[in-house]
Amino acid sequence: EKFPKVLENSEKFPTILTCEPTEEGTYDFPLVATKLEFGEYLENAWVRYAIHGEMNKEKSNIILLLTSFDATHRDVTYHIWPGGTLDPTKFCVIVINHLGNGESYSPSHSPPWSSHPRYPRCVSPFDQARVISLLLDSLGIEKVQLAYGYSMGAIHSLHLAASDPERIRRVAGICGGVRACPTNKVFLESLRHCIFASEGWDDKSYWFSPSSPKSLSAMRKAFARIYAGWGVSSEFYETAEYEKIGYESLEDFSIQSYEAGFQTGDMNNLLAQIDTWRSADLSRGFEGSLADALGSMRCPVLLMPCTTDKYFLAEEIKDVCQSLSHGIYRPINSSWGHRAGDPWRETQEHQANLIRESVNDFLQVDSKV
Amino acid sequence: EKFPKVLENSEKFPTILTCEPTEEGTYDFPLVATKLEFGEYLENAWVRYAIHGEMNKEKSNIILLLTSFDATHRDVTYHIWPGGTLDPTKFCVIVINHLGNGESYSPSHSPPWSSHPRYPRCVSPFDQARVISLLLDSLGIEKVQLAYGYSMGAIHSLHLAASDPERIRRVAGICGGVRACPTNKVFLESLRHCIFASEGWDDKSYWFSPSSPKSLSAMRKAFARIYAGWGVSSEFYETAEYEKIGYESLEDFSIQSYEAGFQTGDMNNLLAQIDTWRSADLSRGFEGSLADALGSMRCPVLLMPCTTDKYFLAEEIKDVCQSLSHGIYRPINSSWGHRAGDPWRETQEHQANLIRESVNDFLQVDSKV
Repeated sequence: EKFPKVLENSEKFPTILTCEPTEEGTYDFPLVATKLEFGEYLENAWVRYAIHGEMNKEKSNIILLLTSFDATHRDVTYHIWPGGTLDPTKFCVIVINHLGNGESYSPSHSPPWSSHPRYPRCVSPFDQARVISLLLDSLGIEKVQLAYGYSMGAIHSLHLAASDPERIRRVAGICGGVRACPTNKVFLESLRHCIFASEGWDDKSYWFSPSSPKSLSAMRKAFARIYAGWGVSSEFYETAEYEKIGYESLEDFSIQSYEAGFQTGDMNNLLAQIDTWRSADLSRGFEGSLADALGSMRCPVLLMPCTTDKYFLAEEIKDVCQSLSHGIYRPINSSWGHRAGDPWRETQEHQANLIRESVNDFLQVDSKV
Repeated sequence: EKFPKVLENSEKFPTILTCEPTEEGTYDFPLVATKLEFGEYLENAWVRYAIHGEMNKEKSNIILLLTSFDATHRDVTYHIWPGGTLDPTKFCVIVINHLGNGESYSPSHSPPWSSHPRYPRCVSPFDQARVISLLLDSLGIEKVQLAYGYSMGAIHSLHLAASDPERIRRVAGICGGVRACPTNKVFLESLRHCIFASEGWDDKSYWFSPSSPKSLSAMRKAFARIYAGWGVSSEFYETAEYEKIGYESLEDFSIQSYEAGFQTGDMNNLLAQIDTWRSADLSRGFEGSLADALGSMRCPVLLMPCTTDKYFLAEEIKDVCQSLSHGIYRPINSSWGHRAGDPWRETQEHQANLIRESVNDFLQVDSKV
């Protein structure tokens, strides 16, 4: 079997966790028990999603917006406005939280001392895509006009298009790709090992539980400081771009932009997301053949890497694009690196405009799916 | 006063630590009390150095080989052989351990529970250069034919040439420069914060003291894993250069090359060396003017950055070279990044040859000093 199968209502996992979302327009899709790519089971889980705009009768106006690393459905709504990248007056935009992000089922919902089965060691991008397909099944959605994602959201969008090729009509992947390249893996391993060396880490239970708020804060800062070396480009630092956008100094930028960004981070959820990210390799679903994987995607695919992204290297994304039957390559020329693809900051107007225009053009492209 | 002055035999610091080097050809130069650039005192310290070759009567055949981050006089001897980069049959090569490297005075010699004054919070590159000048004074060496250094050794060589311009006749700086650039600082901060978040860290005493060998091992691994993302280039990883040189996989390389490299590291000494490194800024000795700093160096300076170095960016080194009165720019074209400048590995023959030939040519260049 190429993709994992869902096990419904098995005797082994009879109950569904009650998990009521409190926000209007937000829903939970229960997952009783799903066998995952690496043999683990996802048990009594849920996928939390939000809906913006009206689903039409034919369910033919669906756009999926998949979340990125450490982001939730609340963090990505800046794309959704009349005339925006994703227009809720024209489309029904379903924002789907990936597993592990703290909204959908995550390690934080099943600590070692809880009676709930532990969160799996690895929920792969194929698994993430699989549960999205199950959600779409349950909603009776047969065609998706666009799966849009940034970074990890792009990884998941591409895995979804490859594993559910009859449903996804278009994919827009911003600063993301089909795998964690070796350089990217080295970065992710540095984050993991920093957690493993921290005061709060327990190897036996694979669980971070700091003994004090100070220890937790130090861990988050370390995580943020490693991130700071990778999230933007060297050019960004060398031209003091941080000063041009209002930070007083390099240290001020590191604290206000990076440390602040992780100051409420749940380390166990972050680790789970790293374990998802580092397992990204689309070829794995196609007996190791990236050519077969890319060939399986019949839909048009818009890929927008940033020219200075340190995670998803523009050169590799260009190669991917050329191997697709209908790949469109629109690089973002910027010193902002990976962050260029997540232009929620006021100072990223140029990047936001480019993405908005490119995606709106892309929605006009014919799809054979 | 532009550079810190030494305080000899003050009443406050009457004793000199006894520290007998055990290796033949290795000596300790005592430093009773030296005021440092940032106002601290270096007390009862020593600089350990090794001598290869014979000093001639006129003391006119001296080459200094300055150590790099986490390296000692033993680690750099691969340069020293008849016909090598530094030929001990033609020159007297003095290998000088920088303060903090575990051989010269270091945090490991003055833990919080010892009666010895603590190692200063920051021994800057100007301080490192200053103690080298004091050593040369004591040895009666008026002219140095070449100060050679890789990485931190290059930083110190350049600071030495700027602060002691009548003595240093030539500088060869391999994969190093005149400062820690912003990108480099971000990297160094990530290492620091990883230590600060570790199980063994105590903020009050600024001291790493892990509670178990496992905790120490985890810290060293985390340190190594962060390093792995910066020490070689992205191209090195993307072209699987690690496989070409005999490693089985990315993980194998990360463990055998990086983790192994730090598996005996003293974290307090490493932190002290980071604190030296990140304070590197030659302009600070010249009222903030890099132009003045570079202008002060009348000697020929050979700079050999690696084209893919992530610490000392080739573009910046080229600019530095052009601002020097006699700068010679010889980039190392390689995917090895920063490691290209430390070609002790069998697989680095190309880089070793280039450096050896360039340095031997450079020793023929006339100097007005």
